[in-house]
Amino acid sequence: MTDPSDPADQSEPSDPIDPDTPGTPRTSAENAQLALLLEVAGTPKPGNVDRKREYADLRFEHFLAGAVGAREGLTIATADEPVGEAFEHAIEGMATQRGGNTHFGALLLLCPLARAAAAEDLTPGGTAAVVASTTVEDAAAFYRAFEHVDVAVAEPPDAIDSLDVRRGEAAIPALCERDLTLFDVMELSAERDGVAREWVSRFERSFRLADRLAALDGPVIERTSQAYLEALAAEPDTFVAINHDGETAREVTDRAGAVLAGEEDSGEVERFADELIEREINPGTTADVTAGGLFIALERGLEI
Amino acid sequence: MTDPSDPADQSEPSDPIDPDTPGTPRTSAENAQLALLLEVAGTPKPGNVDRKREYADLRFEHFLAGAVGAREGLTIATADEPVGEAFEHAIEGMATQRGGNTHFGALLLLCPLARAAAAEDLTPGGTAAVVASTTVEDAAAFYRAFEHVDVAVAEPPDAIDSLDVRRGEAAIPALCERDLTLFDVMELSAERDGVAREWVSRFERSFRLADRLAALDGPVIERTSQAYLEALAAEPDTFVAINHDGETAREVTDRAGAVLAGEEDSGEVERFADELIEREINPGTTADVTAGGLFIALERGLEI
Repeated sequence: MTDPSDPADQSEPSDPIDPDTPGTPRTSAENAQLALLLEVAGTPKPGNVDRKREYADLRFEHFLAGAVGAREGLTIATADEPVGEAFEHAIEGMATQRGGNTHFGALLLLCPLARAAAAEDLTPGGTAAVVASTTVEDAAAFYRAFEHVDVAVAEPPDAIDSLDVRRGEAAIPALCERDLTLFDVMELSAERDGVAREWVSRFERSFRLADRLAALDGPVIERTSQAYLEALAAEPDTFVAINHDGETAREVTDRAGAVLAGEEDSGEVERFADELIEREINPGTTADVTAGGLFIALERGLEI
Repeated sequence: MTDPSDPADQSEPSDPIDPDTPGTPRTSAENAQLALLLEVAGTPKPGNVDRKREYADLRFEHFLAGAVGAREGLTIATADEPVGEAFEHAIEGMATQRGGNTHFGALLLLCPLARAAAAEDLTPGGTAAVVASTTVEDAAAFYRAFEHVDVAVAEPPDAIDSLDVRRGEAAIPALCERDLTLFDVMELSAERDGVAREWVSRFERSFRLADRLAALDGPVIERTSQAYLEALAAEPDTFVAINHDGETAREVTDRAGAVLAGEEDSGEVERFADELIEREINPGTTADVTAGGLFIALERGLEI
């Protein structure tokens, strides 16, 4: 009879999985697709489509179909292919449903994150290295992606009018002339676009959100809702600022902070969610960062 | 200036898509994955997990992760690979979440359906030809799939006790000895298992459900709910009969019929859904057939 307290008897443990080693049973492309699905399932997520709330022309199933179509592009992102090509491919697949833009910003975060994960360096530095290595050809693919879907964007400053993304492919000659990489393009937009800002700030908010997802308790859907609300309270949403104005974006952030601080009663977050949908105020950038954070957390072994 | 009413001017139409030609912008593997996601999103779907209802240990996100993990197996099903291998691969991927069996029956329908679609013959006859061509090796892969996940199954008759699926791989020698193909195994189970019955009846209920999805109006989630309820009212659910008893299965069918007939008020379907979840009565076979029908409808061009 062996003594279980004797280390010599445990030289061949029956369970080969070391519980201290983070890991995931899924590939990085699978985790990226799952991040898209968990993000949209998270409820309440004030202003964004979730399991319980949707818009008449942008419904829950559009997000499901968008995530299905994006998978191949995400697989390309984890292979040794250019980030821009992976992104364009993901957007083209995402657009095979009638809701329009479901995941543009989320995929613009997930493609470099998935590439960093495939290179086994899913860290702020590793992700920064991926985006720093982008080329003019990646920028051209990014512009081509706008041919597949309508995306709400900020008016560009006059100085970069020839680079307005709404010009789609027509802007490519200007990109080449000015020798701008995709990273350069993101730098030009970072002030007014929260997704571009992630590209130039080592994906800081996405990594912070992943930390929160890991630290919180309960089912992943509840953690997603809470982490989203915290991110919304921390910084005005640039998609709201673009589609409405800066004052509305600040109002939403203040309101999210008040809900978190418990200044309002416990049903308030649901009412807040209903009200934003009613007013068509959609903090899409915060949802994009939530998808980025979910991906990182899944890669680190967050269990479903 | 051209006259748009002059057919001679229309010899090169600007839209190359013939609206009368059914088609889908997705691959068959993508449609199969989307069918899994739309099925679980459909609400109300009395007794099954949906956007609004779940069990404490079998949650909505388990179905999302199950569908993500199943995709690679579904891709194999659309390549020139054996159906049994595709199925085992899909189940192994599906099981990478803690909810357990989310899609076993649905995948047992989708693998041959996806194979028939890839062979460009997604018809009752084309699907029957796929299942008729299965081998003993497919049957062995099916038994190996039970090693990856716990599945509720009927007690086998004494005569085929050595083929009890709960024996997993241990049953493979008996399969080989009796030279049983996967189709043969399904035939042995068809009386008591509604998924196996589809295999031996040209996927009759799946095709009928696809017809209903196409004929109904409104968003696909609402069509899914309605088509599911009709299928539930049409035939007692074998998963309910296995987990509870035949009387319970008939009670659920009768109740679904009464709801459809409008004998009860309009909120009744939601109350019926709440009650079945409360009683843990889960018509899983009807959900599986719904996924099969969604796949066929998507392949025929149902738009999302």
